[in-house]
Amino acid sequence: MKRIKGGVTAPKGFYAAGMFSGIKRSHKKDLAIIFSPAVCTAAGTFTANKVKAAPVLVDQQQVKSGRAQAIVANAGNANCCTGAKGLQNAWAMIKATAKGLHISPKHVLVCSTGVIGVQLPIAKVKPGIAELCRQLVKGEHSAKGGTDAADAIMTTDVVRKEIAVELNLKGRIVRVGAMAKGAGMISPRMHATMLAFITTDAKISAQLLRRTLSDAVEDTFNSTVIDNDMSTNDTVLVLANGMSKVKIGPKSGEYHKFAAALKYVCDQLAQMMVADGEGATKVVVVEVAGAKNTTDAKKIAKAIVSSDLFKCMVFGGDPNFGRMLAAIGYSGAFVKPERIAIDIEGVPLVRKGIGIFSRQAPRMMRRKQIRFKINLGVGRAKAKAYGCDMTFDYVRINSKYRT
Amino acid sequence: MKRIKGGVTAPKGFYAAGMFSGIKRSHKKDLAIIFSPAVCTAAGTFTANKVKAAPVLVDQQQVKSGRAQAIVANAGNANCCTGAKGLQNAWAMIKATAKGLHISPKHVLVCSTGVIGVQLPIAKVKPGIAELCRQLVKGEHSAKGGTDAADAIMTTDVVRKEIAVELNLKGRIVRVGAMAKGAGMISPRMHATMLAFITTDAKISAQLLRRTLSDAVEDTFNSTVIDNDMSTNDTVLVLANGMSKVKIGPKSGEYHKFAAALKYVCDQLAQMMVADGEGATKVVVVEVAGAKNTTDAKKIAKAIVSSDLFKCMVFGGDPNFGRMLAAIGYSGAFVKPERIAIDIEGVPLVRKGIGIFSRQAPRMMRRKQIRFKINLGVGRAKAKAYGCDMTFDYVRINSKYRT
Repeated sequence: MKRIKGGVTAPKGFYAAGMFSGIKRSHKKDLAIIFSPAVCTAAGTFTANKVKAAPVLVDQQQVKSGRAQAIVANAGNANCCTGAKGLQNAWAMIKATAKGLHISPKHVLVCSTGVIGVQLPIAKVKPGIAELCRQLVKGEHSAKGGTDAADAIMTTDVVRKEIAVELNLKGRIVRVGAMAKGAGMISPRMHATMLAFITTDAKISAQLLRRTLSDAVEDTFNSTVIDNDMSTNDTVLVLANGMSKVKIGPKSGEYHKFAAALKYVCDQLAQMMVADGEGATKVVVVEVAGAKNTTDAKKIAKAIVSSDLFKCMVFGGDPNFGRMLAAIGYSGAFVKPERIAIDIEGVPLVRKGIGIFSRQAPRMMRRKQIRFKINLGVGRAKAKAYGCDMTFDYVRINSKYRT
Repeated sequence: MKRIKGGVTAPKGFYAAGMFSGIKRSHKKDLAIIFSPAVCTAAGTFTANKVKAAPVLVDQQQVKSGRAQAIVANAGNANCCTGAKGLQNAWAMIKATAKGLHISPKHVLVCSTGVIGVQLPIAKVKPGIAELCRQLVKGEHSAKGGTDAADAIMTTDVVRKEIAVELNLKGRIVRVGAMAKGAGMISPRMHATMLAFITTDAKISAQLLRRTLSDAVEDTFNSTVIDNDMSTNDTVLVLANGMSKVKIGPKSGEYHKFAAALKYVCDQLAQMMVADGEGATKVVVVEVAGAKNTTDAKKIAKAIVSSDLFKCMVFGGDPNFGRMLAAIGYSGAFVKPERIAIDIEGVPLVRKGIGIFSRQAPRMMRRKQIRFKINLGVGRAKAKAYGCDMTFDYVRINSKYRT
């Protein structure tokens, strides 16, 4: 596997475009379409929030068939808590896209992100969709259409999130590309944690694609915490159009390579997300080992990266292990406090549950990416989680911005 | 029931004293003793954190007998993650107190709050205990000993927390007094949420006292959220010395009045705590009604007051109901999104799950105490929770202060 340039349009037969349609007050791009002329197998994971945005409710139905070939997405408006009118608008986006691309509405997925509780300005969105479709059908869209699309789904994101990788499977090239957005309302209590759209020219059944996506999401996006809030809109979608003509069968050597590539793409996007966390200045990786089982290891890793006190401490640069021990204690996992060991970047912080003071630890806290290793000493299971610090800017952004 | 001046020394036969013993760098008071010459019935609730401070482990044993007559508490050091030495020091505090007061070590409870992972400077604490005991035994302690004691358990608290009430039960006076500390590391995931010491001159069995305390704590301290972190040290203790000679039997009219008084005292202390939350500028009361059951109602009330995004929005003064709907959705409670109604100070914000914009709502957000009412429309159960806003000062305090 090697990393290549680009994003969702890196795999063969995928096209994308993005534009400003009139939603964002900033006049930045706010509407994107990803399109494969060939019908794809498709899978998705969605927020576990019981209050789901209209496009999430619609996509959950749409993706059941395991077939899709276009994703239409807007930023600036979440189309959530918008009642029957909101559902109508989500369907209107699908229908406009299907019409413009001359495909079945059954093969279109829709996503929204932005302000909750305000009706989508559909009169502006529909002409935008028509224009993007026209460009895509006539081949008049920009060469950097994937990048335009990635820009168009950003909200409080500062950095565009794109990635693509290439696999050589028995002499043939398979590519996986992706784009994502997410900088706030990201937490471990959801199945999908932000908007992420993944494309691949591999040939894979919808069923296998679904399982591969679930596994990849669980260890990556679902192990990522910016704050403890769970969005109403979060969605991860993957489309596989088979254009590489490389078939990925279950349990094959190709499958393992493909699954690893999908996970790598999700992992890299997850790391981009925490690095771009609202107001974040530092990225934290918490690796837990020696747990009784994987569930426990995850609980602890997530409890630590979710702790406001821990996050403030990372911002302040003080290696206050007490806050980590407190989070380990309330995580719900089985622990023997007297066996806990914690290291920061290889420097011992805690041994046998007792703090060790070192002059090196505060220096390690000044790094831009800080790795904590925790050994519980009660088993062999492990897990990791990504997080970021809590800063004045997090409070500033969220006391002013309407999400 | 009427509110009276004072705190733990308001009930008959309770004495208290506080001083600087040498723990706090600020040279503020850091050591307190509460003492009843008569042996009391006693009950306690403790943090659910699996990483428990030494004094919590000791008190859990000590309180089992249902008898006690002194509480010794220090601030500035949590005596947590301190291993065998920490347990020795907790016992040393008990023994020094018992010796100084000429009582059995079995009747002494101990509490600590402050920095985690540093050994208690017991060589400074022991002479302090001896001095406080000398004052208490000789009656040389200050007339405002209760207030001195309340000051001595403060850490990041800005405001001292004391309260006392008086009951007239069949013509005889019964008093309940209390003091508390708590401004951070306060969350719904613990059984006891900070240090609170309650005294009463009622005569009540240890068994009944235990049950009454549990009920009171559940609806008050355990419904209070400042941040989502659960302390390793939190403890609520109650001592009843029977000096009023009013016996409180189960299921009696007196019992209901006494239980109501205990709950009132806890409720007021809980409200003082959120008002003094680290960096807080506003207090929030979230009342949930129409839930399927009480557990669900509590889940939702706590999910909202725990949400960082909600707390930032309260700070910013923007009535962004979408964040409340999102928290309701991920709370885990049974909801029908299309039935949810939300009011802020009597002004409708959400009806049938859809946002209602009003010019009055932003004005209500400027109040110092803001009451949100949520009706889920799926049952008859209700609950409430107290919270506060998240501010720049919360981040400042916790990125600098070692708890």
